[in-house]
Amino acid sequence: MGVHNVMEDVVRDTLLSYKNKMNLTCDCEQCLSDISALALNELPPRYIANSKYSPYVRATHEADMQGATTIIAVIAKSAALVSKSPRCEAFALKQGQ
Amino acid sequence: MGVHNVMEDVVRDTLLSYKNKMNLTCDCEQCLSDISALALNELPPRYIANSKYSPYVRATHEADMQGATTIIAVIAKSAALVSKSPRCEAFALKQGQ
Repeated sequence: MGVHNVMEDVVRDTLLSYKNKMNLTCDCEQCLSDISALALNELPPRYIANSKYSPYVRATHEADMQGATTIIAVIAKSAALVSKSPRCEAFALKQGQ
Repeated sequence: MGVHNVMEDVVRDTLLSYKNKMNLTCDCEQCLSDISALALNELPPRYIANSKYSPYVRATHEADMQGATTIIAVIAKSAALVSKSPRCEAFALKQGQ
């Protein structure tokens, strides 16, 4: 059953655009995944069964300024949480030096 | 960023276990995907960043009887909706005969 949550793409793109402004302690792949997972658990899912409709769903998200602000706010909150206690090896190594 | 919604697995397994009891008009791959997507948009997402933790999250869902009942109810509602107006080619062909 091929279903896809378009919100995953929206969160990934938003995170990649804003990560430099979010004062992340670490921006390794694992920390970015942690931030995404936390944010996606708070945002409403937008599942579609056919990926050809993905651009339409994304377009509604891009047009919805209030929704976009909510998404950025949720990602910033998740980023702050992960930055406070990153659990990646890269950070553990940095701390150990 | 490798994130995965464990709820996708829970919905897929529940749907496959109960689909014979749901009086589906059509149980082709596309209709099952439509039912899953509708159900997943109503259920709370359970994203994880590391798939090795998937069994733990699933275990909490299996232990939670009230949650399991909610999941079945949401899937049954989605199945009724898709069964009322299936949009797959298999069904269109059957109708055309």
